[in-house]
Amino acid sequence: MVNPSWRTLRYNDPFMSLVVVGSVAYDGIETPHGKEDRLLGGSATYISLAARFFGPAQIVAVVGEDFAAEDVQLLKDRGVDLEGLERAAGKTFYWSGVYSEDLNDRTTLRTDLNVFAEFSPKLPAAYRSESYLFLGNIQPTLQSQVREQMTGARLVGGDTMNLWIRENRQELAETLRRWDVLLVNDSEARMLSGENHLRRAAEKILAMGPRTLIIKRGEYGAVLFRRDGYFVTPGFLLESVFDPTGAGDSFAGGFMGYLAGCGADPDDHLVLRQAVIYGSVLGSFCCERFGVRRLLDLTRDEIDARYREFRAFTQF
Amino acid sequence: MVNPSWRTLRYNDPFMSLVVVGSVAYDGIETPHGKEDRLLGGSATYISLAARFFGPAQIVAVVGEDFAAEDVQLLKDRGVDLEGLERAAGKTFYWSGVYSEDLNDRTTLRTDLNVFAEFSPKLPAAYRSESYLFLGNIQPTLQSQVREQMTGARLVGGDTMNLWIRENRQELAETLRRWDVLLVNDSEARMLSGENHLRRAAEKILAMGPRTLIIKRGEYGAVLFRRDGYFVTPGFLLESVFDPTGAGDSFAGGFMGYLAGCGADPDDHLVLRQAVIYGSVLGSFCCERFGVRRLLDLTRDEIDARYREFRAFTQF
Repeated sequence: MVNPSWRTLRYNDPFMSLVVVGSVAYDGIETPHGKEDRLLGGSATYISLAARFFGPAQIVAVVGEDFAAEDVQLLKDRGVDLEGLERAAGKTFYWSGVYSEDLNDRTTLRTDLNVFAEFSPKLPAAYRSESYLFLGNIQPTLQSQVREQMTGARLVGGDTMNLWIRENRQELAETLRRWDVLLVNDSEARMLSGENHLRRAAEKILAMGPRTLIIKRGEYGAVLFRRDGYFVTPGFLLESVFDPTGAGDSFAGGFMGYLAGCGADPDDHLVLRQAVIYGSVLGSFCCERFGVRRLLDLTRDEIDARYREFRAFTQF
Repeated sequence: MVNPSWRTLRYNDPFMSLVVVGSVAYDGIETPHGKEDRLLGGSATYISLAARFFGPAQIVAVVGEDFAAEDVQLLKDRGVDLEGLERAAGKTFYWSGVYSEDLNDRTTLRTDLNVFAEFSPKLPAAYRSESYLFLGNIQPTLQSQVREQMTGARLVGGDTMNLWIRENRQELAETLRRWDVLLVNDSEARMLSGENHLRRAAEKILAMGPRTLIIKRGEYGAVLFRRDGYFVTPGFLLESVFDPTGAGDSFAGGFMGYLAGCGADPDDHLVLRQAVIYGSVLGSFCCERFGVRRLLDLTRDEIDARYREFRAFTQF
């Protein structure tokens, strides 16, 4: 049995910062449990709010003139560094969607890219020497540009989506070559590899560059694939799911935040497994309330208790 | 870490026999990998062929005059006791179905109950003093009748299906009261409890009598619920799935066979967890070839190797 706090001590530089590139948005969300408009959202928001439990998080994103001062304050209060948050003329990215009765399907009602349409990530000078980078779901060429500016990065992870897999396959292949970790969901993995079967899909994707592939399976958990082995975790059985929005991004934040927080080596298979559990823990908490709300009142003690519960309910 | 072979030694009566009540049938199966007619099938067949790796299995079932001598021999050669296999005038139960391209859906083409329509399980005298009983998916009143004949049983497990939940709810509730373990899939658990949410469904079902509930989730694994805790295992990531027919019954056979094989106490939570893994192992092997074929050439060494692989890919 490995004690995660002991593992942390093995590394030289704990509590390293995680640079997160992605979107900051306002979301309109309707689930069987209620309806809310203009909730603070976006991938960079969820990722940084989940990652900050393990160490500092720094956002590279863009918002419009309508972005509320209290939302800036909310992120600052949680220790999220906003030097890389650009404010542009126009409105903040807005998305709205409605979930099915069982929360397994969601229909997008509106996507107004607004200032996000012209987003060109600008890394503040201070961020360029950081060691941990997560490239949220943006156009692959933009991901490459950020990656190239962080030449000394120790561990680079990233995300993508069906749109880029379909429309920008070549650019995506180029940026993937320089990532350590790719996080996708199962349908994206199938689309990217052209393989329906998860193990064969993983083999093809690992051949594209990333040495670690995480496939998220929603309520059914996640799988980690590497050439030196694989790891499967079931999902946490929540008492009730209020709103699954941002669960995948919270997973990414928990996963990458834990790795940065313990200064992990990108090929330490055991620490990567622990990071998958922390990702699952953060993703599960995210669903317990609307939008980012559960991430705001969450404590590190609650996170560690659920991590221990994962160990207890998977051991045999 | 617990060594399962060590656990076996803790009990007084290892290699106890498992009495299995269910169907013996011929199946016509079509999957994207091929089409076969009149394959040996039926719940009691899969369950006993999976259970016999851990100790003796005894079948209580009925076949027709067309049941082939070589199929009798096939079961005998694998150590399945057939004293309780009745031969009746008429034809053997026949079922045929076709699977979707991704193997996740199946359409029944034909169900000819034949001699199974009048099946009234008759327990040979020698079976009545056995300690482990699995009541396969038959009419709940018949399950009760068998249960009552085995007054000294140490551990009784059973299965049911949507038809009985809908049409014979009262009889089902009565028989469930005297079971230790209920094994169902997730849609049956939801239907039986009237609860969509897995944890709440489990709570309601545990209140109906069984002290252990196993919910099978197909490729996503299984969950064990008890009042003293729960256990979740992901499914095995198969290289390729040829034919999922009988996977659920093979799970039941591996699960119950392991418990009988180590003379387990019905409330030994740790051994129940190990049994869920053995169930998952047998269910996964079953999918690797058509019908029962993979269960025929399988070895105990292969089973134990996959059990160890489960431990390796779930540990963190």
